[in-house]
Amino acid sequence: MMRMDFLTLFPDMFPGVLQSSMLKQAQDKQAVSYHVHNIRDFSENKHRKTDDYPYGGGAGMVLTPQPVFDAAAFAGEKREEKARVILLCPQGAPFTQKDAEELADEQQLIFICGHYEGYDERIRTHLVTDEYSIGDFIMTGGELGAMALADSVTRLLPGVLGNNESAAADSFSEPLLEHPHYTRPADFRGMKVPDVLLSGHHKNIETWRREQALNRTRERRPDLLEKGGQHGSLKEDEKNR
Amino acid sequence: MMRMDFLTLFPDMFPGVLQSSMLKQAQDKQAVSYHVHNIRDFSENKHRKTDDYPYGGGAGMVLTPQPVFDAAAFAGEKREEKARVILLCPQGAPFTQKDAEELADEQQLIFICGHYEGYDERIRTHLVTDEYSIGDFIMTGGELGAMALADSVTRLLPGVLGNNESAAADSFSEPLLEHPHYTRPADFRGMKVPDVLLSGHHKNIETWRREQALNRTRERRPDLLEKGGQHGSLKEDEKNR
Repeated sequence: MMRMDFLTLFPDMFPGVLQSSMLKQAQDKQAVSYHVHNIRDFSENKHRKTDDYPYGGGAGMVLTPQPVFDAAAFAGEKREEKARVILLCPQGAPFTQKDAEELADEQQLIFICGHYEGYDERIRTHLVTDEYSIGDFIMTGGELGAMALADSVTRLLPGVLGNNESAAADSFSEPLLEHPHYTRPADFRGMKVPDVLLSGHHKNIETWRREQALNRTRERRPDLLEKGGQHGSLKEDEKNR
Repeated sequence: MMRMDFLTLFPDMFPGVLQSSMLKQAQDKQAVSYHVHNIRDFSENKHRKTDDYPYGGGAGMVLTPQPVFDAAAFAGEKREEKARVILLCPQGAPFTQKDAEELADEQQLIFICGHYEGYDERIRTHLVTDEYSIGDFIMTGGELGAMALADSVTRLLPGVLGNNESAAADSFSEPLLEHPHYTRPADFRGMKVPDVLLSGHHKNIETWRREQALNRTRERRPDLLEKGGQHGSLKEDEKNR
C-alpha cells in the first residue's frame, strides 16, 4: 500500500478533498493511506513559530528549516524504503503524466506544502528529492498542488480505477486530446448531437472521433502532435495534415 | 466584490480549502464571495442522475447537459454583468499568471468541475467561455484545478494581500524564477547560509540574488528567459550569458 504524507501549515484544507470521490475510494480499497501533518506541531520554538525574516533583507517571511526537517523525519520513520520528498513550488519542473506514472511506483511520497514568501533554501538542497510546479501561475501555498499530484498518482495505483474507467484512453497517455463526448438527449434545447454518433455505423464513428481528436489537438496543442511524432503512436499522414 | 461560483458533484471538497488561509481572509475582507453548487441538485431526472452513456459507444459515462446548464443559469441570474464560465479540462489552455490577472478584472467567475469520462460537448460549445488546464496530467475531476485558479485570482484582488506580501516580486510577474531565500539559524545542523547574505553589504546581496535567479532560470526554465527577451525586462547581457 502506498503512503502519502502532507506537511502543511493548513491541515484543515485536506480532509474534505481526501475524503471525497476517488481519493476516498482508493483508501477504502487500501490502495493508499494519507497522513496530514501540521508543520507547526514540530516547531521547537516556544511560540511554535515556523517563519522568520530573510537573511539579506527583503519583503515577506521565510519558512524555517527546523520544523520542516523534523516533520519529514517523523513522516518517513518506520518505513524501510526511503521516501520521495516532493516540494511544490514555481521553480519546480512542470508536472506531467509521465511523472505521475513514475511516482505511482514508489512506496511513500512526502509532500512539502509551503506558504509565506518562500522556503529556506536548505529545505530544497538537503531534504527535497523532487520539485514540481503545476503551472506558470502563483498560488498562496503548495497545498492545492500537492493534492492535485496526489489525485493524479492515486488513480494510477493498482485496483483504484474500475475496468470501465480504464486510464489508458485518457488524454496525455497518447499525444492527442480527447474527441468530443455526447450523451442524451439527442436534441437539448435545440442543440443537437452530430448525426454520425446516432448512425450506429461503428467504423464511421471511429473515423469521426479520430478526426475530431486530431483537429482539436492541431488547433489547441500542436506541441503534443510534435511529441507524438517521436512517440510513434501517430500514423505518418496524421502528423502532417 | 467579485463572486465565484463552483459547480461540482463533490461539494464537500470545497469548504476546507475556501475557509483556510488567504481565501478565508479575502472573504473576511469582502473582496470575494464563494458559492458552491451541487450539480446533482439541478437534475430534472427523478433519480437526480447527472450522467449517461456516450452516443456512439465507448467506455465511461458522460456528464449530461441539463443539470449543468441549469446550475450555471442559477449561479449567474441576478447579476448584471455576464459571468465568465470556466471549464477545467485537459483540452484547455495551460493557465498562466497572465490569465489570472485578466480574470481578476471580472465581476463573476463560474467554474464547472466535471467528473466521469467527460462532459457533453454542448456544455463546451454553448455555455463555457474559457477552458483551462493546470498541466499535462490527468485528475479525477476539475475541483482541484478550479480551486487553484480561484486561489491565483483571489490573491490579485484589491486589498487581499498586505503591503509586505507584494504580488509584484513573485515568480512569473517577471520572467525569472526567484532567488534562494534563507532565514535563521545561520548554521542549521551543519548546513550554512551563504556568507554574502550575512555581510550586510546590500549591493553585493542584490548582485548575488540576481545572479542566482538568472542561473536558476537558465538551468531549469530557459523558456522563461526567451520570453524575457520579448518582455524587455532583462538587460541585454543577462539574456545571452
